[in-house]
Parts: sequence; structure tokens; C-alpha cells
Amino acid sequence: MLDLRPILLVIGILLIILAVFMAPPMIADMSVGHPDWQVFLAAGCVTLFAGVSLVLMNRTPDFGELSGRQAFLLTTSVWIALTVFAATPMAFSDLELDTADAVFEAMSGITTTGSTVIVDLDHAPPGILLWRAILQWLGGIGIIVMGVAILPILSVGGMQLVRAESSDLSEKILPRAAQIASAIGLIYLGLTLLCAALYWWAGMTPFEAAAHAMTTIATGGFSTADASFAAFESPVIEWIAIVFMVLGALPFVLYIQASNGQIMALLRDAQVQWFLGITAVGVLAIALWLVETDGLPILRAVRHAAFATVSLITGTGYAAQDYGLWGPFPIAALFFLMCVGGCTGSTTGGIKIFRFTVLNAVARGQIARLIRPHGVVVSTFNGRPLPEAAAIAVMGFIFMFALSFSLFAIALSALGLDYLTAMSGALTALANVGPGLGSVIGPSGNFASLPDGAKWLLSAAMLLGRLELFTVLILFAPSFWRG
Amino acid sequence: MLDLRPILLVIGILLIILAVFMAPPMIADMSVGHPDWQVFLAAGCVTLFAGVSLVLMNRTPDFGELSGRQAFLLTTSVWIALTVFAATPMAFSDLELDTADAVFEAMSGITTTGSTVIVDLDHAPPGILLWRAILQWLGGIGIIVMGVAILPILSVGGMQLVRAESSDLSEKILPRAAQIASAIGLIYLGLTLLCAALYWWAGMTPFEAAAHAMTTIATGGFSTADASFAAFESPVIEWIAIVFMVLGALPFVLYIQASNGQIMALLRDAQVQWFLGITAVGVLAIALWLVETDGLPILRAVRHAAFATVSLITGTGYAAQDYGLWGPFPIAALFFLMCVGGCTGSTTGGIKIFRFTVLNAVARGQIARLIRPHGVVVSTFNGRPLPEAAAIAVMGFIFMFALSFSLFAIALSALGLDYLTAMSGALTALANVGPGLGSVIGPSGNFASLPDGAKWLLSAAMLLGRLELFTVLILFAPSFWRG
Repeated sequence: MLDLRPILLVIGILLIILAVFMAPPMIADMSVGHPDWQVFLAAGCVTLFAGVSLVLMNRTPDFGELSGRQAFLLTTSVWIALTVFAATPMAFSDLELDTADAVFEAMSGITTTGSTVIVDLDHAPPGILLWRAILQWLGGIGIIVMGVAILPILSVGGMQLVRAESSDLSEKILPRAAQIASAIGLIYLGLTLLCAALYWWAGMTPFEAAAHAMTTIATGGFSTADASFAAFESPVIEWIAIVFMVLGALPFVLYIQASNGQIMALLRDAQVQWFLGITAVGVLAIALWLVETDGLPILRAVRHAAFATVSLITGTGYAAQDYGLWGPFPIAALFFLMCVGGCTGSTTGGIKIFRFTVLNAVARGQIARLIRPHGVVVSTFNGRPLPEAAAIAVMGFIFMFALSFSLFAIALSALGLDYLTAMSGALTALANVGPGLGSVIGPSGNFASLPDGAKWLLSAAMLLGRLELFTVLILFAPSFWRG
Repeated sequence: MLDLRPILLVIGILLIILAVFMAPPMIADMSVGHPDWQVFLAAGCVTLFAGVSLVLMNRTPDFGELSGRQAFLLTTSVWIALTVFAATPMAFSDLELDTADAVFEAMSGITTTGSTVIVDLDHAPPGILLWRAILQWLGGIGIIVMGVAILPILSVGGMQLVRAESSDLSEKILPRAAQIASAIGLIYLGLTLLCAALYWWAGMTPFEAAAHAMTTIATGGFSTADASFAAFESPVIEWIAIVFMVLGALPFVLYIQASNGQIMALLRDAQVQWFLGITAVGVLAIALWLVETDGLPILRAVRHAAFATVSLITGTGYAAQDYGLWGPFPIAALFFLMCVGGCTGSTTGGIKIFRFTVLNAVARGQIARLIRPHGVVVSTFNGRPLPEAAAIAVMGFIFMFALSFSLFAIALSALGLDYLTAMSGALTALANVGPGLGSVIGPSGNFASLPDGAKWLLSAAMLLGRLELFTVLILFAPSFWRG
């Protein structure tokens, strides 16, 4: 039998934290006299009560250490429990979202996806807008901690490869998570404050600056305006967003080293080099297309291309221009960039860069082996030999990503969504990007018009993608429960 | 230095065979008095001359055996040389195709893809129609021989896994290829004759029956009518096509065993079971959709669904109905079925079933390993343990397939093709299917309207897909040429 108490204890602690974070939206609504403050107060009390109860009922002097199975169950159930409680203010607020909508919006927030079902954000009460930003901000630090502290130990999807980068940490899951959270939390907070200050300096109101800083560094993508960054019409603000989305997509562990003076460690990292390289190629190609076809001046073309490329490759999902109108090449290029994702140990989703570097090593090894069947071929990752088991795990992950994408796309189309909406909807949810392509869910669209079934499917896809697929899928294996 | 003589010798022999097969179209055109017979005569003479010259110049008493590198170079260059000579009758015929069109049509034929740039097939001269069918028929037997005799020895894309199935054969490439060709050739011819007889019995003219039988068993998909099988309006003909497309997608080596009385060997094969299973699921799901949304009677729905599913999963590409009009679910489902392909050692393209069975074994192994990190997990393929190197090769192939698909789709869209055309065009070429999706290149469309650049790209994609990617890509590795 699985001992559920440590799991329930951790959920309880995190619910208490969630409840505390319902205070700022309450205050925001009070300050403008919007009645929604009562919703946040009530939801906060319920969440706090649930959290405290779980902690009290499951507290014992010492649990020892989490087993692997407990850690898997913990990870998925934490994310689901937080989503449910985070959805309550959405459901009971002035916006009167129904269950599917409220869960979709909360899941989209906490997984830092950024798809929204709320129409007319510009006139939404400040509490909800702040709450959405806070969810993404918490989800962002949550995924960093999970990606650095938990998944590498569980070897999910080949993530054992990135364990060595932080080998000075405890091998025990919970102490390790606490260490990481405190070390990286400070950097995360510092970057958020810096981003907010720059947004404010560049012309946003303090409220907009705070909300957007939280969703930028979390590569989340929720905005306070339907038009997203197009509402500000400011090149400076767009460049600030581009820089901080990139910062949110790099491995946060390296920032700790960088803050110890090892700036070069950041630039020598294979993931960082590949990420910046792929991004640069995407930006250049799309900028050239914009210059050629739309006759944009080169600098503006670079800005437009950089914003869209960075926004989608990092899975943020802001829109400063409607890239859906740029023609066939940018649409196709951005579609594939959406699956790429950023570095592991960052706030981004998608397949993630380190898996592409592994694939590159494997593909080179394949070619070498075909040419010299009896030669010895050693593939490397970040300068170290690449174990075959890790290569298989990485490719197993990518296959599962492709399979999940196919099944979600087919299921969405069975609900009546058109080809482009179904394809890009499945991908944008699974890669935690945000907007899709096409007129329905594209950068100038909204997920509100989709049928409820599609919203539930997309919520599930966001969760699956956020937790690197296997963390969730393993719970459906009968042998997991046989103990 | 690579010794090119054996390569040129084999090309010469195959060109002589190709020249001989230009006789039937010549006779067909003569019999209706169409002047194109002179084109076939001239092309046949040129091809024969080139073939005989190559044979005479490169004939020596004994070559010993082909090296791996020679075999790779042979495979790709044979396909290209045959395409060039096969394109000449197209270019100089009454249809006056330009170079890009002629090469596209010949490549589409010889790779058994089935995309066409010829408009108004119904009024095309019989010589060209027969020539297209013959190209697919030759391409079909060619790919079987290559898939059974050559690629497994070269271990391309994990194909060493299917080598054991024919382990009583020589391990030397050229004798092995000759053995296979003679054993399977008879079965291939027999099935073609049976199919033609049934088509004729069901109402086709002898000419139509012969042409379609050749492109059915080769899972090629060229038709003698623009409307493809919709032109015959005959459920019986459609069912015959369904059965023979399935027969063309099973491993031909097993037919040899079956003809020795081991019928069960065919049904016990993991590839066959998976192929029939996936096809059945696709047919049922699409038939249910057609019953639900269009209110078709169940039997007709099954026939329509079976024809479209079998036609696309086998990469044949016939159309009996315009499945583009069936709504979002069938379009999405058929899109993904297009990549699946049939069994290895058959005439089909795509990723191929055995790779999915390997992936399934790997995915199960991953889950088992995550649950019990220290347990011993042995994955199996067709009852035998699965070597890690083969699993990596299979997944490397799938990654390369996905990467090639992405790059071709992006490149096509850069040429101005819309999203659906670019996506489905890249896939249909790479998987050697035939028609794409959408109004331009869909089942009721045609590739003629695409820009020349797109036709060249698609021709390259067909070749790449037909030769299992790595056979071609390896030629671009500098170390291949360093000897």
C-alpha cells in the first residue's frame, strides 16, 4: 500500500500558500470597490481550511523519504488539487464562468499555458486579472522546482541527463526540493521585480507592470488586455518582454552559478547555445520573410519576428502582432517552433531543448554506425558520454509527445473543431504555449467559443504536457498500483 | 576510393529492363494510332543504349561482393537514374510536361506515391496511362526487393530487426537480391493477374483492369481517370481494391511461407496483427462518424471508410469518395493514418508498422522502468528480445521522419503554399501516399498548379521517404566520402 500521508501533507502546505496568495487579488478588488473581493475572501478561507486540515491530519514527526511512486503520485495530485482550488474564485466571480471554463482558465494559469476563455479582459475586475497572473507566477516557480528537484531523480523522459548539473544537492526528494525552491526563488523574485520596474518605466501602469512581469518571467502569457501586447503599441515594452521571456526560458540553476561570478557557465551550456541558436534562426528567417513580402523596414521586421518567435518557442503566448496574417511561411515555422520549448529547469514547456541535443547526438551516431557498422561510436551530451538508456528515454518521450498530440488532435476534431484549430489547439495545450493558429483560437481569438468537451480535453493536455507526460501516464499503468 | 563499376553495372541492367517495359505503352499507342508511340520508341532506344553501354563498360568476370558504402550509393543512384529515364517519355509526349512536371510524375510513379500533375487523365493517350502504371508496378517490386534484401543488411532505421525473418537467404547483397526478386516476383505477378481478372470481371475494361491492378498491388495509386475510383461507381470494384491494397501492404516474404502451407505464419506475425488492428480501428471510427453525421447506411459507411482508410494507410492514394468533405474528424484521423504505412517488405511507404510495435515495446519498458528503477526490464519484438541499438535506430528514424516533415512543410509554405496544402503535401510525399488534403492537392485536386520549386521539393521528399531517409541522407555525410 502507498502511504498517502506525506502526499496529503505536501498538498496541504501548498494549499495554505495558495490561500495566502488570494489576499492580493482581494485587496485589489477592495481598492476599486469591486464586490469580487468577497469571492476571494471566501475562496481563501475555504482553501486555507482545507490546507490546514490536511496538514494537521497528516503531520507526524518524521516520514523518512518519499518513494518514487509516492513522488509520482504527489506531483500529479498537487497540480490537480491546486487547479481545483485556484478555479473557485474564477467560478464564483463576477465573470460567472461555468465549471469547464473555470477549470480551463485555472489549469491554463497554473501550467503557465496562457490560453484564456475570458472575453473582454480590458473590463475585467482587477482581482481576477491579478489572480491569473499570480497563478502563472506560482506555476512558473513550481515547474522549475519540479524540473530541477523531482523529475531528474525520477528519470522522467531522460531527465536524468540534467541531474548532474546540480549534483551538489541532496538526492532526497523533499529536502532537495526545499533547497532548490529557496535558492531559485530569490532569483525568480528578483527577475520579476526587475521586469516589473522596466515595464513601469516604459509606460505601463504599476498594475499592468506587475501582472505582466509575473506572466513574462513565468513564460505564461496571460495579459490584462484582449489585445495582449498590441494594446501598448510600444517597441520598448516589446523588447523588454522579449529579453525577459528569453531569461525565463534558460536553466535557472545556471543563474545561481552566474550570480557566483561564473557568467560563462551560462553561455557554455549546450542547452543555452542550442536554444539561442534555434531562436536566432527562426527570428532571422521570419524577419526576412516580413521584409520581402510585407516590405517592413528591417528593424521593425526583426522586432515583430523576435516577439512572435520568442513568445511561441518559450511557450509564453503573448501577441504583439497578429502573426496569423503574416502568410504561410511564418505560420508553418511558428507551428513547429511551438513544440521546441526552452531549456529544462526553466518555466517553459514543450519538448525542450536538451532532448533535441540528445536527438542530434543520436542521429549523428546513427549515420556514423551506418557508414562503419563495426566501428565504436560514442555519443556525447554536454561533453559527457550519453548512456543508451537515457537516449531511449528521451526518444520515448518524443514519441509519446507525438502520439499524445495526434490523439488529442483527432479527439478535438471529433468534437467538430476544424483542422487548423484542432491541430494547433492540441499542440498549444500540450506544449503549454497559449494561443493556437487560425481565426478561432489564434492570437486574436479566444478559447471561449469551444465546446465544453474540448475545454476538458485541452485542460488534460495542458496537465499532461506540463508534467512531462510520463509523470501522469504512469498512474494509468496497472502495475503502478500493484505495489 | 569507391569502386563505382558494380554500381554502374547494376544501373545498366535495370535500365535495360526499363527499356523493355517501354514496349507495352508503345504498342498501346500504336493500337489506337496515337503518335506518342514514336516517343516511347525513341525513349526506349535511348534507355536501351544507355543501359547496354553501362553494362559493357563495367562488366568484369567477378566483382566479389558489394561493400556497405557501395550498396548505399547503389540504392540511391538506381532510383534517381531510373526516374530520369522514366521521365523522358512524359516530357516528350503529347502532354508536353516541362522538366519539373515530368520528373515529378516519374518520381511519383517509381516511388509508388501516386501524386499526379497530369490534368484530364480521361483523355490522355493510353501509352502514358500504361507507362504510369508500369512505373508504379516496377517501383513496387523494386521496393520489396530493397526492403527485404538490402536495407536489413545495411541496418537502416532499425531494419535489422526484420532480417531474421528471411534468415535462410544469403547474407551477400546481390545474390540475396536476386533470390528475393525471383521468389517474390512470381507471387507479385500472380496477385497482379488475379486482381486484374477480378477488376475486369467486375466491369472495368481490360485496359483499365490491367492499369489499376498494377497500381493497386503496388499500393501506388495512379488511376486512368481524374475521378480515380469514383469514376466506376461500383461497390464491388471498390471492395476488390480494398482487399488487394491490404494484400499489397503485408510482408511479401510471408506469402512465400503461406504458399508452402503455413497460412498461420501470416496471421501470427506481429506486424500483420498490428496493421490489421490499426486499420480496423480507423475504419470503424470513421464509419461511425459517417453514420452519425451524414446518416449513411451502415454498410455504405463501412465501405467508404474502409476505402479511404486502406487507401491512405497503405499509401495507395486512390479516392472513391472525396473524404475532404467528410468533416473535421475523418480529415484529422486520415492525416495521421497517412504516416503509419504498412508492413516492411511490402510495397507501402510511411513510418511502417514494425516501428510502432518497437515503440510500443519501448514505451512499456519506460513505464516499467519508472515504476521499478532497479528492476530488469527486457523489451521484446516479435517474441525475441529487442536490442537497445535497434530501438535507438527505430526512434532515430522516426525523429528524422518528423524533422524532414517539418522542414519540407516549412519550405513548402515559404514557397507560398497554404497551411493545409504545405502540411499534407510534405506528409503525402514523404510517406509516398499520393493525394494530400484540402482543395488544392486533395483527392479531387491535382499537383499541377503548384510552383516548380514545390514540385522539386516534393520529388526529393518522395525519394527520401521511399529509401527510408538514412539511405539518402548518409550520402551527405562528409565521412561517407572520406573512405
